[in-house]
Order: sequence, then structure tokens, then C-alpha cells
Amino acid sequence: MSTYHAPVADMRFVLFDVLGAEAQFQRLGFADATRDVLDAVLDEAARFTETVLAPLNAVGDREGCRLDQASGRVTTPTGFKQAYAQFVEGGWAGLTSPAEFGGQGLPHAAGVPLKEMIDASNLAWGNFPLLSHGATEALMHHGEAWQQEVFLKPLVEGRWTGTMCLTEPHCGSDLGLLKTRAEPNGDGSYSITGTKIFITAGEHDFTDNIVHLVLARLPDAPAGSKGISLFVVPRERVGQDGSAGGANAVRCGSLEHKMGIHGSATCVMNFDGAQGYLIGQPHKGLMAMFTMMNTARLAVGLQGLGLSDRALQNALRYSRERLQMRALSGAKFPDKPADPIIVHPDVRRMLLTCKALVEGGRVMGYDAALQVDIAHHAPDAAEREQADVLVGFLTPIVKACLTEWGVECTYQALQCFGGHGYIAEHGMEQLSRDARITTLYEGTTGIQALDLLGRKIMQLQGAGLRIFLAQVMSFCDAHANDAAVAEFIAPLREKAAQWQQLTLQVGKRAAANPDEVGAASYDYLMYSGYVVLAYWWARSVAAANASAQPQTFKDDKRDTARFYFARILPRTLAHAAAMESGVAGLPELSVDVA
Amino acid sequence: MSTYHAPVADMRFVLFDVLGAEAQFQRLGFADATRDVLDAVLDEAARFTETVLAPLNAVGDREGCRLDQASGRVTTPTGFKQAYAQFVEGGWAGLTSPAEFGGQGLPHAAGVPLKEMIDASNLAWGNFPLLSHGATEALMHHGEAWQQEVFLKPLVEGRWTGTMCLTEPHCGSDLGLLKTRAEPNGDGSYSITGTKIFITAGEHDFTDNIVHLVLARLPDAPAGSKGISLFVVPRERVGQDGSAGGANAVRCGSLEHKMGIHGSATCVMNFDGAQGYLIGQPHKGLMAMFTMMNTARLAVGLQGLGLSDRALQNALRYSRERLQMRALSGAKFPDKPADPIIVHPDVRRMLLTCKALVEGGRVMGYDAALQVDIAHHAPDAAEREQADVLVGFLTPIVKACLTEWGVECTYQALQCFGGHGYIAEHGMEQLSRDARITTLYEGTTGIQALDLLGRKIMQLQGAGLRIFLAQVMSFCDAHANDAAVAEFIAPLREKAAQWQQLTLQVGKRAAANPDEVGAASYDYLMYSGYVVLAYWWARSVAAANASAQPQTFKDDKRDTARFYFARILPRTLAHAAAMESGVAGLPELSVDVA
Repeated sequence: MSTYHAPVADMRFVLFDVLGAEAQFQRLGFADATRDVLDAVLDEAARFTETVLAPLNAVGDREGCRLDQASGRVTTPTGFKQAYAQFVEGGWAGLTSPAEFGGQGLPHAAGVPLKEMIDASNLAWGNFPLLSHGATEALMHHGEAWQQEVFLKPLVEGRWTGTMCLTEPHCGSDLGLLKTRAEPNGDGSYSITGTKIFITAGEHDFTDNIVHLVLARLPDAPAGSKGISLFVVPRERVGQDGSAGGANAVRCGSLEHKMGIHGSATCVMNFDGAQGYLIGQPHKGLMAMFTMMNTARLAVGLQGLGLSDRALQNALRYSRERLQMRALSGAKFPDKPADPIIVHPDVRRMLLTCKALVEGGRVMGYDAALQVDIAHHAPDAAEREQADVLVGFLTPIVKACLTEWGVECTYQALQCFGGHGYIAEHGMEQLSRDARITTLYEGTTGIQALDLLGRKIMQLQGAGLRIFLAQVMSFCDAHANDAAVAEFIAPLREKAAQWQQLTLQVGKRAAANPDEVGAASYDYLMYSGYVVLAYWWARSVAAANASAQPQTFKDDKRDTARFYFARILPRTLAHAAAMESGVAGLPELSVDVA
Repeated sequence: MSTYHAPVADMRFVLFDVLGAEAQFQRLGFADATRDVLDAVLDEAARFTETVLAPLNAVGDREGCRLDQASGRVTTPTGFKQAYAQFVEGGWAGLTSPAEFGGQGLPHAAGVPLKEMIDASNLAWGNFPLLSHGATEALMHHGEAWQQEVFLKPLVEGRWTGTMCLTEPHCGSDLGLLKTRAEPNGDGSYSITGTKIFITAGEHDFTDNIVHLVLARLPDAPAGSKGISLFVVPRERVGQDGSAGGANAVRCGSLEHKMGIHGSATCVMNFDGAQGYLIGQPHKGLMAMFTMMNTARLAVGLQGLGLSDRALQNALRYSRERLQMRALSGAKFPDKPADPIIVHPDVRRMLLTCKALVEGGRVMGYDAALQVDIAHHAPDAAEREQADVLVGFLTPIVKACLTEWGVECTYQALQCFGGHGYIAEHGMEQLSRDARITTLYEGTTGIQALDLLGRKIMQLQGAGLRIFLAQVMSFCDAHANDAAVAEFIAPLREKAAQWQQLTLQVGKRAAANPDEVGAASYDYLMYSGYVVLAYWWARSVAAANASAQPQTFKDDKRDTARFYFARILPRTLAHAAAMESGVAGLPELSVDVA
């Protein structure tokens, strides 16, 4: 069985030494977010996830969720419901929600290590509270006062959970095609009718009520994506005064049989004239959804990170224990029947690949979360605006790269186990199967790539890239004479310059043919991710060197950074060449079957 | 559910137009292997695999194998046993075995398309006859006459199946550690005692007897890999005269719960003084195993190829049917609610990646099989020797690359389905899970990489590489003025030259520090694979152009080759940079847990 130990020391290093989060939180007005409080949160989160959630991970995979067709009710795996009760009891549900709605009022970035720990310890379970978070944000920013009172507060307290009902059988990425209808009832409520699929946490036994946020069309809606409105539809009806109104006409029709995350209930939800209320303006539902899209996508990125870390931890342990063959340079442990496989350079290559992507990815993911806080709470409007642009720019990179790397790290870590990795009892194959969903939901990697290049670069004229590159250049200038990081500055400058050039080139080509955007988008995205990670690795080395961390920690960061620059960053060469070849190298494929 | 259509047209192109197999087979003395016969074999194999095996693929995944603990007997999934009976009835079991042992006497390479079709249609089922093949080869080359009469003939006829019992709980890659004992009984037989794990097809309900080939130590065996002998141990005892001798002391103790290939029985086999007979010389068991290792590894490479092709076929179909969003360059199907996703360049990128790796990989895999035939049957001893060296050189490349690409193609193809790919009903996630075993068994990718660089390059002084590069250069020279392939010749020459240089460099470094081999091996292997594939793509274009294929076929090969050279071959840049960084970039990782 795979084990999990929350990497609290590295999380502290990232938050406090690299990102200076303590000072940032104070500057942003989070008076309670002191180092003492944050340290206590980390320790308690580690305890909760290691002892309560991690042991349920294999259970959830084995048992899955069960639907009782007669009642439409779902039973979650053994222990999941009790774990959720402990989660609510511990005050975790509203950790980063504003105090006025019953939350703990900590900054968004302070909740990110908890999120990573949940994902690593039990991704399937973590999807239940995760989906509440999206509903919480939508109601916080777009809900009327009574909706916040009636629906938002129970969500923040964790008494109820939420869902996001977007996808329909014929539309996923293209929500403009959706068909679910909303008819006004004349009393301020609406009747919602339609079928939604892939609804995570659509039905379960954790709470007495479930708050569905549903995209649907009003009778007078324009066609396409400009005619979509957002509704709140509780499973148990609630009046505007909070009075109970009996069962609503919404029901789980079936559960999907999935490759992984078996413990998550992925539901087909049938709305059959269900009572709901409009959130925000009519026909502006997609815009309301966009409010929460960045944080939802960043959250899925953290899922990739968490799974990668757990996979790495277990591969490290196995590679230290498993004795097989001698080192090519001679026996390292002659007293044992063979050397532990960690002595083999190729095993180290796999482990270090995971390590470089996990530790670097952690800074990448946490930084984006900190930018979310800055975008909302910086005292200066220009700084808020700039951070907002930066979040928009970083989100597709963080989401896509951390999840693609999640697939890669769970692959490499399993590979360290040889054939044993393929067997369920070691838990490695579950991590691989669970990771596989993360490059698909909340927008596939291809959708992230289009968002980055088509929207954040082309439509917004690269504003986010300029802000980010200014950070990189400022760091390079500040450390031009810093012996601790000198070896990384020149290659970082070079990659940053090439990033700019490639951006200009693809922009020029796209002006002539819009399909050039789609032809370059994936490779542009991955290229970007590797340069962003190079920046964070260089900064990690500088931060470690300037910190009070022990010398072994500093050496370890420097060695891993060297590995990253020597072995991983060269992938940019392949991505650059691929994107430079343009749409000409992507021949049409017949639409008619040959 | 995923569908499968055997790609008979491309198989014919590869065999006859690219590799000139018909003339080769005649030259090698296979008088019966005429084009008519081979065409009929292809058509019949397509019919059998499409109609009998493919429909059982999802069944096998869902049901898995079941062990009855009381009897130690395994029940295979519904339909598997009947399909095997049809397989034997159709004469497929001995298709490429010599006529003297009851086979059809066709060349090894003539059986490879059947093998690919079986793997694509039902990998889990295919493992049962596959394992017989290894046992057949061992007995053919090392068995005594009575052993061939008693054990080999039923294997060739398919009346019995075989296994390879190598791995033990504490030893996989490092067979020198194995502990299973063989004690002489004084009557020419031995008593075998020990536990073997990961035994594919170790127990099942297809046949009346199962022939286990078992590695074990004789009482006087030297330690390590030089003290291992090979034994034949039938489940039902058989005398040297073929007389039935009752149940043997060998029993399936349990079945592994695996990520995929659920329809394959992966057994723990307990030998408790089981009666067996020595095959070949005492203490020379590993050498006898090496006889069949190349073909076993090439066979696993074909598994990666078959799964890739099936994944691609289904992704192509889905991408033509699924309507989602408009092309960036404007609606391509304005009469439909949205364009089929195949119009999006990034979807084409994923499909073409699979197509380039599948069609190029097919030539790579089939060529290696043809070299096996040449190594055994060429009239000239020097040619046989040269082909044998080439097979040894190509085997780790073919095995590792076709399986790594199998993981990649099943990933990319699933990605085309978006969230639907994660759901069991489309069958894509099964292909991904099934593909995951192929980079692990018969030697992980890391083991293949060490075999290539440590053994085939360093120990054998690059003899295989020289032979292969001579082929490449001869092709480049012959086509220097061929307009149809001119665009591919220069980059191919350049990569081939760099391959030589990198080989010399790593050789020099390894002379100073043997760990440099392990530090470079993986990247050297993948680099090699991409250059080999570039060669086969250039040759495919030349062969298509010189063939009677329709112009659309020729254009399609040229376009796919262009995609390969522009978008995939640049991966060599990253692999070259990584291997050049050497062992210095792979810091030690503490063996003690931090």
C-alpha cells in the first residue's frame, strides 16, 4: 500500500523562504495569518490528511460509490462520510472563506498546502469539498443577499456541499451548445429541465442537502454562449426565507464507471422541472462561471502536484529498499546480496525527474495562489489589476503542466517498481489511474493551450507574459553577481529571450492564418511551463541560499536545480522546433472515414 | 466500446513494398510463403481477430480471471476458452513453427501481422498463446529428442500451452538472486521447489496440460547467474515415453490484481517438489533463456504497436464524429451545430503523433522480425551472423520504443475523447491500462536501455550500430537524387552522424566512469529509436513512391513523414542534451531515508 507524509518542510520553504508569504499576507490585510497560525495550520492539516484521509485512499478505489436506483441515492466508500464529518468538525471547510460568511478568513494561498495534502492523500475524497469551493465562489461574487444567507453559509460551514453542472452529453468544451432549459415560475423561481453529465459529487451521503449550480437557457436566450444563465438548484428545496420545501425534482440517474477516482461520485444528473433561482444577470452565466474558473483550474493543477509527490515518496522508499543488481561502478553494499536500486543512475534519473517537477511545481502552484490573493486584496488598484492579469496568464500553464507532469511522475514512479508497480497492492497503479483524469477535466490540456495562446497571448496582447518576464529579468539582474545561482542565470535569460521571440513569431504567423494558433498552442504551452519552472528553480536556489535552512537542504536544492536545467529544460528545444514547423506540418485528415 | 479493424492494407505495404518480404522469404527457402498464401493468411487473421477476439476484449477486462482456491484452478473470462479452441482449430498456434514439429512452417515475419492483430484485438487473451511461443523456442533449440516429442509437439499444435517461470519475489531483473531449487531424483528427473511470481498463463482452463519452463538451481550450482539451470515442469506429469503420470506438485497459489490485462492470468506458482527435466546443460539455463529473449521482447514491442493502432483508430472515428467548437479559421461545416473536432490543429497533432508512431513503428517492428528470419535461414553464414548481431542491436530499441510509444499513443488517443475517454464504456481507458504493462514486463525500458548501451554498444563495440548505419547511408546514397524523398535525406544523414558522435562521446566517458553508461542509457535508447524511425519513414516514402499504391496513399505517407520529421524527430535534441550532461547531473540520492 502506498504511504503519504505531508512534505511540510518543503511547503514551509516554498511559502515563507521563496514566496515571502508571511509578509505578503500581512501587507494584504490578513492580520490573523501570522507565521504561528500558518505553522499550526500546516501541522494540523498534515495530521488530518495523513491519519484520516490517506488510509481511505485504497478503500475508495476498491469500493467505489454505489447508486441505489430506487432512491437515486449514492453511498460513498467506507469511512468517507466519517472523514468528511471530521473535516467539517475541524473547521477545514471554510478555512479560506471570509469570516462574514462563517469562514476562517485566511488567505487563499494559505489553504493551498491543505489542498495539496488532501489531493495527495485521497484525491477521490478531495473532490467532494473541492466542488463546494466553486459553488461558494459563485455565490459569494454573484449571489443575492438571501441566496448567500440561505445557500452560501451552509456551504462555507460544510453542512452542505456544492456542484458545478455544466457538461451535457453533446457539449463539454463547447458550452454554447447546451440545451438545459429554465422556465420562470412567476414567483421568482425557475423550473430547470435537462440532463447534465460528469457531475462530480452530484449525489452522496455526506450532507443533508446538495447545492447544484446549473447552467441553463432562459426562454428568450440568444443562441450560443451568450444565452446561458446560471442557477442555484438545491437537492432539497429551500424557500427564500430558508424554510425547507421538500425534495426537488433533481436526481442522480447513474454513476460513471471510470478509470480511476472511484471514490468520487461522477453522476449523470437529471433535472425534471427542478426549482432553482437565477444567480447574477440573465444570459451572463458563463461570465459568472469564469469568476471561479481560474481557481478551479489552479486547484486541479494542485491535484497533479499532490499525486506526483505521493508517487515520488513511494518510489524513493521502494528504490532504497529493493535490492537488485550491482552498481555499474562496483558494488556499493557488498554485504548485501545486491545493491538497492537507487544506486543505478537510471533509477535516479526517474526519481530526480519527479523531484524536479514536484518541488519546482510546488513553487509554481503556490505562487499562482498568492497572485490570486494579491489580485483580490492588494491595497493598490494597479497592483490588483496586474496580479489579475498574471493569474489569467499563469492559470493555463499551471493547470496543464502540473497535471501533465502528474501523469509523467506517476508513470516514472511506477516504473521504478518494475512489474510490482502494475500490481494493485503497492498503490502505484491507482495513483497513475487517478492522475489520468487531471489532464481532462476543468478543460483538457489542449483547451488550456488554446486559452494561453489564443486568449492570454493573442487577444490580450501578451500582457501577462510581459509582467512575468519582467519578474524574471528583475530576478536575473538582482542575482547577476550571486555566486550561488550564477550558473542558472545565463540559461534562464536565454530561454526567456527565446520565449519572447517565439511568441512574436507565432503571433505573426497567426495574423496570416488563425489555425497557426491551434498548431502551436500545445508546444507553446509546454515550452512556457518549462521556462516558468526554470525561473522557479533558480529562485528556489537563491532563496535556499539566503535562508536559514541547513547546508544539506541548500545543496539538495542546488543539485536538483542542476538536474532540472541539464535534463528537463532541454525539452524546450523539441517544443520550440515543433511549434516553429507551424500548421504546414499538420496535414488535413479526412473527415470522411477512408 | 472500442472497435478494431485490422490494418491489412498498411501491413501489406510494410511487408511487401517497404521490406520486400516476398522475395526475402523465397530467398530464405520458404517456398510456401508465396504472396498468395501470405495474403490469405492476412485476410483470415483479420477475420479471426476482428470477429472472435476483439469482441471479447472488454469482457476480459470486466470479468478477469478467477482462481478456485480449493482446486487451484483458474477460470478465464467468458468466451476466452472457446476463442482459443477456434485459434487451435484454425491452425494458428503453429503458424510459424517448423513442419517437423507439426507447424505450418511459415517464416517468423509472416506471423508478425497476426501477432499485431491479436495484441490489438485482445492483448490479455493474446498472452496465453504468446507464452507458449517462448516455451516452444526453448524446447526447439535446447530440448532433447524425447522432450521435443513429448512436450514440444503438443505446444506447436496448441493442445497444451507453455509458461516462462523466471521471476521470484526478491528477484526480477536480477535473476542471479533466484532461489528455486532442483534436486536430482536419480531417475533422470528432478524435484523442483520454490515460488515463482508474475507467471503469465500459469494456470487456465484452455488446455489439459500446461508446460512450465522453470529456472532453478542444482545442488552443486555456483552462486549468481552462472548457477542457474532450465527445467521443463508439466502441470500433469508425463513420462519420457509420453505416458500420463498424474498431477504434478505445482499449483497456482494466487492471482495478482493488476492495473490492466485483467483477462490474462498472472499467477503466483508454487513448486513443491514438482517433477521436472533438465533442458540443455546444467548451469546454462540463462543462456538457454537468452535464445528466446530477443523474440519475446520483440513480441512485447508488437503489443505496444497493436494497442497504439487500436487507440488511434478509435480516436480518429471519435474526432470525426464529435462536434465541438468552430475551426479557428472559420466554420468548416456551417450546416452542423459545430465542427467535428478533427478540424482543430491540436487534435490533428495528437492523431498524427499516433499515426506517425504507429505506421513508422510497424516498419520498425516487422523489419526486426524479418532480420530474425535472415539470422536463421540466410544461405550465407556471414549474412546470418550479421543479421543476428542486428537483431540483438534492434531488439532493445524495438521493445522499449514501441512500448513507450504505446503508452504515449493510448494517452494521446484517450485525450482526443476528453472526459469521455476516462469512462469505461468507450474502451479507451482499458487500452491505456493494458499498455502500461508493456514497458515493465520482459525487461523494463531501463533494462532495455542498459542492454542497448551497456551490452550491444559498449561490450560488442557497436557492431550492430555500424551495420544499421551502413543501411541508412546506403539508402541515403541511393536516394540522393530522388525528388520524392530528397527533403528527408539531409536531416536523416545529420541525425545518423550525430548518433555516431554521441556514441563515441558516451563511450569515452564510460571508459572513465562506468556509471556514465547508466546515466546516458535511457536517453541514448530513445534517441536511437527516433533516428531508426526517421530512417523507416524516409524509406516508407521512397517505397510508397516506387509502388503501385494510389496517389492518395503516397501523399498520405509523405505528409505523415513530414509531420514526423518536423514534430517528433526534434525530441532527439532534448535526449542528446540530457545524455551529454552525463552522470554529473544525476546527484546521489541518500540511501537512508531523510
